[in-house]
Amino acid sequence: MEGISHEVCSLAGTLGLGKLIAIYDSNSISIDGDVQGWFTDDTAKRFEAYGWHVIHEIDGHDADAIKTALEQARAETNRPSLVICRTIIGYGAPNKQGKESSHGAALGDDEVQLAREQLGWKHPPFEIPQEYYAAWDATSKGVALESEWTVKYNNWKKAWPDLAVEFERRMRGELPDSWAETTATYQQTCADKAESVASRKASQNTLDAYGPILPELIGGSADLAGSNNTIWSGSKTNSADSPAGNYLYYGVREFGMTAINNGIALHGGFIPYGGTFLIFSDYARNAIRMSALMQQRNIYVLTHDSIGLGEDGPTHQAVEQAASLRLIPNLSVWRPCDTVETAVAWQHAIARREGPTALLLSRQNLEHQSRSAEQIADISRGGYVLVDSSREPELILIATGSEVELAVNVASRLNSQGHSIRVVSMPCTDLFDTRDADYRESVLPSTCSRRIAIEAGVKDCWYKYVGLKGKVLGMTTYGESAPAKDVFEHFGFTEARLMELIDSFTAN
Amino acid sequence: MEGISHEVCSLAGTLGLGKLIAIYDSNSISIDGDVQGWFTDDTAKRFEAYGWHVIHEIDGHDADAIKTALEQARAETNRPSLVICRTIIGYGAPNKQGKESSHGAALGDDEVQLAREQLGWKHPPFEIPQEYYAAWDATSKGVALESEWTVKYNNWKKAWPDLAVEFERRMRGELPDSWAETTATYQQTCADKAESVASRKASQNTLDAYGPILPELIGGSADLAGSNNTIWSGSKTNSADSPAGNYLYYGVREFGMTAINNGIALHGGFIPYGGTFLIFSDYARNAIRMSALMQQRNIYVLTHDSIGLGEDGPTHQAVEQAASLRLIPNLSVWRPCDTVETAVAWQHAIARREGPTALLLSRQNLEHQSRSAEQIADISRGGYVLVDSSREPELILIATGSEVELAVNVASRLNSQGHSIRVVSMPCTDLFDTRDADYRESVLPSTCSRRIAIEAGVKDCWYKYVGLKGKVLGMTTYGESAPAKDVFEHFGFTEARLMELIDSFTAN
Repeated sequence: MEGISHEVCSLAGTLGLGKLIAIYDSNSISIDGDVQGWFTDDTAKRFEAYGWHVIHEIDGHDADAIKTALEQARAETNRPSLVICRTIIGYGAPNKQGKESSHGAALGDDEVQLAREQLGWKHPPFEIPQEYYAAWDATSKGVALESEWTVKYNNWKKAWPDLAVEFERRMRGELPDSWAETTATYQQTCADKAESVASRKASQNTLDAYGPILPELIGGSADLAGSNNTIWSGSKTNSADSPAGNYLYYGVREFGMTAINNGIALHGGFIPYGGTFLIFSDYARNAIRMSALMQQRNIYVLTHDSIGLGEDGPTHQAVEQAASLRLIPNLSVWRPCDTVETAVAWQHAIARREGPTALLLSRQNLEHQSRSAEQIADISRGGYVLVDSSREPELILIATGSEVELAVNVASRLNSQGHSIRVVSMPCTDLFDTRDADYRESVLPSTCSRRIAIEAGVKDCWYKYVGLKGKVLGMTTYGESAPAKDVFEHFGFTEARLMELIDSFTAN
Repeated sequence: MEGISHEVCSLAGTLGLGKLIAIYDSNSISIDGDVQGWFTDDTAKRFEAYGWHVIHEIDGHDADAIKTALEQARAETNRPSLVICRTIIGYGAPNKQGKESSHGAALGDDEVQLAREQLGWKHPPFEIPQEYYAAWDATSKGVALESEWTVKYNNWKKAWPDLAVEFERRMRGELPDSWAETTATYQQTCADKAESVASRKASQNTLDAYGPILPELIGGSADLAGSNNTIWSGSKTNSADSPAGNYLYYGVREFGMTAINNGIALHGGFIPYGGTFLIFSDYARNAIRMSALMQQRNIYVLTHDSIGLGEDGPTHQAVEQAASLRLIPNLSVWRPCDTVETAVAWQHAIARREGPTALLLSRQNLEHQSRSAEQIADISRGGYVLVDSSREPELILIATGSEVELAVNVASRLNSQGHSIRVVSMPCTDLFDTRDADYRESVLPSTCSRRIAIEAGVKDCWYKYVGLKGKVLGMTTYGESAPAKDVFEHFGFTEARLMELIDSFTAN
């Protein structure tokens, strides 16, 4: 019934996934009871409409019928197969079978006893008779199959030692030897070039730089390939006719894309990434959560962040999504401010084996920021001092992504007038939070309570860094439809408004 | 392609919505290009599988064909109808028609000029020739139809004055005269009864109390009717055969349910509510956001909140959902701690005409809290002092929902030993934030920086109330599968752990 079944099954049909066999346990019962009241689909017809091979209702309690159906399904190699098994839920429990009461609750002692009688099961709980155990025990068969495979693999390995090394590296999820050098060199190139481009474009440039040494990278977009800048020079379309491609057109299926990429990550040997607008991450939110819970390396390229999206208006302007993604445990979230931070963000996303990463990227151009080599290295700490004066800071501005340039412009001007304003760029709050207390104190000294966080998103979570005495220049409402520049001005992301906030500290 | 189309169209088929006519603009193009690469559904067959009346491909550029199809669709009153219109995107623009380039970007001056030539359109921009304007002008026809309807309505109103008063009240979205008394009386009853029940049960009891005077209430659940306690004594099933019912079985379709309820709210005359587990609000997140953006009164009954869900484990335990729902602008979020707060939460949800409300409710029993009449009145302020000593507070505990009893137990014990610990119950942070500065200061005096927030969810947003010097007893990871009591103990929601946090203030 849930929508994701449409998204992924429709795409599986288009891609002709002949190895996919789905078994539909059709028992006519969901938690609220007989589904006739809320579900009357002709499921066989629906899947035929997706181009699937459908094996119509078989008796799901008949092992031979299931075996035959699975053999038919395996014989069909050009289309995914759906095996529809008609079953009785709670089969064998005389008073509860065929009813929702056998779904979520224990049967209870009496009903278990009656089920034992009805099924003719004479053995005590947890005792499996030897002959049944032996019939189901696949240990020796498994050992034989595994040995056979190992011999085959070792022969292949001997014949193709280089391929084997590369295959094993990918399956272990390790990065190539040239990784450290490639990323460091590219980040320095970004610093040298000092380009002011949109971070979605910086992301694409980074893929062009890192992609050639990462054949395991497999990407795609939910019908926004051009806008998300997820196609790089090494991208080749994957389709039924060219399954060796490394780029998938997922269609307008954000939830499906994210769940499919979870599956690819779980399989191993690949590093998947998927693009959509940041606002549409809401559609995929459960699959994003599952990637974090399952500790899978799945990378989200979420472009057109914040009100900077502009003309598409409040339905498309992400005001709460950056903050709400940061709340998902074990999801790393980056909102880089320029080409260098974007390159570091991608480096972390690809190197992070313990979980997923979301990259929040702008549609509009972002000013390049100049940094020392030490500052470039500090980006990896999630938050670092980008602009400072030689004295103790009298006020700290904390900013991310597109708002960093506003903070830098104001601080630089004030510092040239003799003030000591610090700008902390905080592209990745979760990484910053894991740094030791000394480092965090060095960036955000507790002696300085005059702090202003600046982000074109909801304010709430920033009080964690600015405290009760601090201020946040952020959003409290939905956005508005207008060119990005006008929207930023309308909502007070301006030097004038920031100066007012700075002055209000002195006024108090 | 998106999953929600499956959820709502499948249900529309089951409910036999004969008045529903959907027009499918089938132009074979999505943003990434020709959909053949990612979408090859037989859509007619798919909708037939849902039990729809499908009018197969007509020429979507032929007005007569469309008119005929709509007449056929209107004649079918037992099934929803899908009219599949084959169209050419960007029709008339010679170089861009039939291509994705005509979707999102302006055609450009040259192509507009060529389109004018191809279509034989000789008039300048924004000028509509009088004969075309006249042909499309439905003003007088509309005036006549409206007059006819008004006469009919006034006659009906004269014949049934009481029904007309009630109908107009509902369509204005106003509550019945007895609303204030009914809610106040019931809240006092809850205080007198002092029952310790799960807040999902308290929610059902509230529906039993308020429901009888609210015939406009229409509810349902996404296949968790019994668990969400959304069926009250006045609930009657709505189905194709009994369309007058006020309870819908939505099936396992959280996103669809929420979007459908948005439609019901937009129609007016009804107050919709829909139930699911709090964790599954992630599936519906975009529709929840849309209700808030569209300022619609849609009520979310989200039960089984937090790690208190217990045995179903981390996939089902909402640790970030309470916080992330609070980030959605114009969504009011309540997490009540007992029967009285639950009754007040429902009162606000129903009375709130400017937007939606989420009610986060427990699976497990919650201790009743005793309150003065003034404290009961203060619940409406979103956050209020529940336990206090006669002196200035030396420390403030802020808690919501199931964690309030922990705060109250520890504070009461310490206060009896001579301490002055304040407990602030904060069931609705958004309401509290809108109160004036004096009230907020009276609840959370700035002189007291020793503050601990307690909530079995992610910590980040609570620093807004406890500041840099405060502490949060919350979650930083996903939950674990075990009985609720064990999970709470495992994650430190215990008197011992809370005492450690309290003592750590003194140690500093």
